[in-house]
Amino acid sequence: MERRKVDPIARLIQALSRLPGVGEKSATRMAFYVLRQGPTFAADLAESLLEATQRVSLCARCQNLTDQAECGICADPQRDVRVLCVVENVQDLRAIERSQEFKGRYHVLHGTLAPLEGIGPEGIKVKELLSRLAGSDRSVEELIVATNPSVEGEATALYLQRVLQPMGFTVTRIASGLPIGGDFEYADPATISRALSGRQRMS
Amino acid sequence: MERRKVDPIARLIQALSRLPGVGEKSATRMAFYVLRQGPTFAADLAESLLEATQRVSLCARCQNLTDQAECGICADPQRDVRVLCVVENVQDLRAIERSQEFKGRYHVLHGTLAPLEGIGPEGIKVKELLSRLAGSDRSVEELIVATNPSVEGEATALYLQRVLQPMGFTVTRIASGLPIGGDFEYADPATISRALSGRQRMS
Repeated sequence: MERRKVDPIARLIQALSRLPGVGEKSATRMAFYVLRQGPTFAADLAESLLEATQRVSLCARCQNLTDQAECGICADPQRDVRVLCVVENVQDLRAIERSQEFKGRYHVLHGTLAPLEGIGPEGIKVKELLSRLAGSDRSVEELIVATNPSVEGEATALYLQRVLQPMGFTVTRIASGLPIGGDFEYADPATISRALSGRQRMS
Repeated sequence: MERRKVDPIARLIQALSRLPGVGEKSATRMAFYVLRQGPTFAADLAESLLEATQRVSLCARCQNLTDQAECGICADPQRDVRVLCVVENVQDLRAIERSQEFKGRYHVLHGTLAPLEGIGPEGIKVKELLSRLAGSDRSVEELIVATNPSVEGEATALYLQRVLQPMGFTVTRIASGLPIGGDFEYADPATISRALSGRQRMS
């Protein structure tokens, strides 16, 4: 097909429908909305897309996304350099930051072990973790493994424990159980089982 | 704020959240997805946005969106030039085209009358309709007013009837009633009322 013959509206709808959670109907609605808004709106979105992909890369220390050599968290002298929170991805890091509960630094794995899909330790940022623990981050004492309580997240946590504990690090795992506001009536058996086995003495 | 200091991820999330139906959460998910896909994905979406807003304009005849002087429907010699279907917007035109029920041409109003919001006939493409009926489209005999069965759509239909009928055109209105597969039990009173008053003799 000749390049100029491609319908630009169809092309825009197709491009938008590749975004996550966007079907053809929403993409069509978005496309017409964009066309109604005029060129400035589209140009701003286009520039944001290009700028983000051009300027954002991985933090040399923790693999968080950043437009600097080191991300804002790693560069913050207020953060506790003795505790490292290991997360699956940047969204999880951001969720933990929003809770304002954690004052240490992070390490982003960018995935989990998934043997069935052929993803082993070399497929996630484990090498980078070991390298920083042996190099610039010798101050780390405890690693909180905050991968999700899913099959893959648990497998990844177990793997990290087996590698890191013999090296002398304290390896802890986030607590699992009923979420705050949750209800036993609606909780799944695995969550209830975890809530029971993870019980703690009340003080 | 200095221009270079704006976090490109935050900027992308903000730009994406201006799309219709996209809240901050979906925008965040989209932004990280885009960053994971790499620069080609973002560049393609950015180019689609720019190309669409640069190349697409209104059809000189029917006000449909097109990248030509006249849209594909107006340029199609197979379409019946005696019937004109008047719609609110391009999405509605596309929906009617998908039904493959209509073989005439269209006129897109790009809105409805909305006196409370200060939108009168000059705020929608009525002038363009009258001008084509008096000029290049003298062949038109019937106008099917296919604005939506909403307060604004009905008001617009009534207005068009009052203007066009005295000019000698046959002005018809789309049928309203229970949708196919609908159920009286769940239909609203206005729809039921319309289904009854619009009843037709069975042949």
